Amino acid sequence: MPKISKVGLAMPSSPIRKLMPFANAAKQAGKRVIHLNIGQPDIDSPKEALKALKEDDRTVVEYSPSEGYDSYRTKLSEYYRKGGIPVMKEDIIITTGGSEALVFGLMSCMDPGDEIIIPEPFYANYIGFAQMAGVNIVPVTAIIDDGFALPSISKFEKLISPKTKAILICNPGNPTGKVYSPENLKELTDMVLRHDLYLFSDEVYREFCYDGAEAKSVLSFKGLEQNAIMIDSVSKRFSMCGARVGTIVTKNAELRNTIMKYAMTRLSPPTLGQIAAEAALLAPESYFEEVRTRYVERRDVLVQGLNEIPGVICPNPGGAFYAVCRLPIDCSDKFCQWVLEEFDLDGDTVMMAPASGFYSTKGAGNDEVRIAYVLDLPLLKKAISCIEAALLVYPGRTN
Amino acid sequence: MPKISKVGLAMPSSPIRKLMPFANAAKQAGKRVIHLNIGQPDIDSPKEALKALKEDDRTVVEYSPSEGYDSYRTKLSEYYRKGGIPVMKEDIIITTGGSEALVFGLMSCMDPGDEIIIPEPFYANYIGFAQMAGVNIVPVTAIIDDGFALPSISKFEKLISPKTKAILICNPGNPTGKVYSPENLKELTDMVLRHDLYLFSDEVYREFCYDGAEAKSVLSFKGLEQNAIMIDSVSKRFSMCGARVGTIVTKNAELRNTIMKYAMTRLSPPTLGQIAAEAALLAPESYFEEVRTRYVERRDVLVQGLNEIPGVICPNPGGAFYAVCRLPIDCSDKFCQWVLEEFDLDGDTVMMAPASGFYSTKGAGNDEVRIAYVLDLPLLKKAISCIEAALLVYPGRTN
Repeated sequence: MPKISKVGLAMPSSPIRKLMPFANAAKQAGKRVIHLNIGQPDIDSPKEALKALKEDDRTVVEYSPSEGYDSYRTKLSEYYRKGGIPVMKEDIIITTGGSEALVFGLMSCMDPGDEIIIPEPFYANYIGFAQMAGVNIVPVTAIIDDGFALPSISKFEKLISPKTKAILICNPGNPTGKVYSPENLKELTDMVLRHDLYLFSDEVYREFCYDGAEAKSVLSFKGLEQNAIMIDSVSKRFSMCGARVGTIVTKNAELRNTIMKYAMTRLSPPTLGQIAAEAALLAPESYFEEVRTRYVERRDVLVQGLNEIPGVICPNPGGAFYAVCRLPIDCSDKFCQWVLEEFDLDGDTVMMAPASGFYSTKGAGNDEVRIAYVLDLPLLKKAISCIEAALLVYPGRTN
Repeated sequence: MPKISKVGLAMPSSPIRKLMPFANAAKQAGKRVIHLNIGQPDIDSPKEALKALKEDDRTVVEYSPSEGYDSYRTKLSEYYRKGGIPVMKEDIIITTGGSEALVFGLMSCMDPGDEIIIPEPFYANYIGFAQMAGVNIVPVTAIIDDGFALPSISKFEKLISPKTKAILICNPGNPTGKVYSPENLKELTDMVLRHDLYLFSDEVYREFCYDGAEAKSVLSFKGLEQNAIMIDSVSKRFSMCGARVGTIVTKNAELRNTIMKYAMTRLSPPTLGQIAAEAALLAPESYFEEVRTRYVERRDVLVQGLNEIPGVICPNPGGAFYAVCRLPIDCSDKFCQWVLEEFDLDGDTVMMAPASGFYSTKGAGNDEVRIAYVLDLPLLKKAISCIEAALLVYPGRTN
């Protein structure tokens, strides 16, 4: 039998995937598993998008242009400009989800062996994308006691080597929900310019900002035009994860030309997803207002509920629909598995994402879990009760 | 300004892309450009697929499983078994088009610096996929005078080095339309086993076989289970290039586990495309019969018409909807550009794909072009007249 690729063997397995057999066994044992581990919003996709799919009258599901449909790119640029981000149609390349945007972006900016600095905890799949591009992640640790604020510029600068080509932030953040302050972002962009780096900003949660916060786009900073790369997607914004429509936006024309070579190699982003995505832009502002109201209500219940549990610390996330909290436990991988295997509260148990999978520093996040609040309030409350009760009896409790 | 990646800069530009400005200029000058360069079939997608999209009543366009919908994988395995290919649901991973299937397959089987042997002329985007995986293509040249038959086993074996990990064939072939004989395939698979290589077989044109020919699947060979990898897609079969639904099929479980790590990293193949693809499997056999009848009629007109032009040689393709022909010219890149820039026949001109882009050997295919017959007969006849008239006056004519 021929050998598997070494790079392939080294690709990370999702930390959630490892828990799946235990979740399935719990279900087979008759428990109800409350899923706090998913990133799929439970909100409906905009009616406008679903209607456009039904009303589309093409007879051939043909390729779109490699850079995406002109009409969609035009309307998307209007959406950005309405939000104060100076984007023209020409700056936009449509991709197969934010995932492909990141892979093409990394491959276009960086060579194998180059380094990218990313504040951790970060979206676990960045590890796989970086590995596909042969790029090494250098983590800079954000601290739960600081509410996962952007690490100080001096911490970033200490990590810059001759191989450093880029910095990647996620704002608002997955898994932390942190929205970076404009002041901190300004310091970061100044530093990026000083060292002539690329700055990737994953802004897929942009619409999910609460308490008056605003996630300032990396494309809004003057002078950063040749360095800034925005990653975006309709997955979370319009609850259309399955459309697989993302985008990579940059004012750097030479970089766009390079990204386009990758885009042409795979011919076309999904045509049907683009039809839905273009129509979704017609969704009224009230669509987002409703969604935000719902998430804020859930967040408040979750964060208050968690912080009331003795020994638990949960910073208040300003955006997205995740929270990372610290639990009084020895190991979140063990705890998350134990809860599924050994615990239930009146037949209910919970599936959480161990935060270790969101850190690249070994051992970091060992007492943290990520919780997604994409569930209705009653279920969310039930989940909090489960966590509280589980912590009372978990053998690996630390204080 | 930060530097572009060296790997990115080295990514190939499509040979057709280079001609686009000349095609656009020709149109602006009032010429009608007959496109012989496209791979998008002009056939309608199955009604069943379009109907399923309209009737789907989900309210959230959510992620599908990373390996694709269970129901689709089940029906797809039935489709293969009906065609005599012993495939189970478990062997199938759904991908974002055949493109992603190839990228994931290469990355899972091969490490940077490894070599893959591919008969040339081959689908030009293989170059980009290989580059994304850091893999080097070693071409083995198929000869137009042999009708682009599979090169002899000894020619393959001469190219095998310690770095050779795989062989990739496309059957029926793009750009040649060649359908390999079962005998030649048997020799190839024996050789693959002798050297313990992977054998990738791109079978996206499987349904397009003419004159009683059959493109035997690489998965039909006993004993090859751990080595064989089939690439497939709905793009051509159902004229749904924009659905972006492909598949990678292998009986090698360890390999599938590795491919799944890449699949999980990008979360989900397109949900909407899968709805269409699953329903397309309901298309009656008459759908393919009609399509084949149409293509055979066009192929016959094209091949006969081209061979009647003095100095032109066009082997009769047994499948797909392309032909590669030899013209009495100095350079197909120049000729294809010249036809767009300098020539018209009563206002008509043609856009062809220079075959040099389908060869990895420098200088090969310099007097060949690829012609796709995805046009109606009157237009195809007009195109042949254009080529004939152009060859009479082209300054770079060689005999």
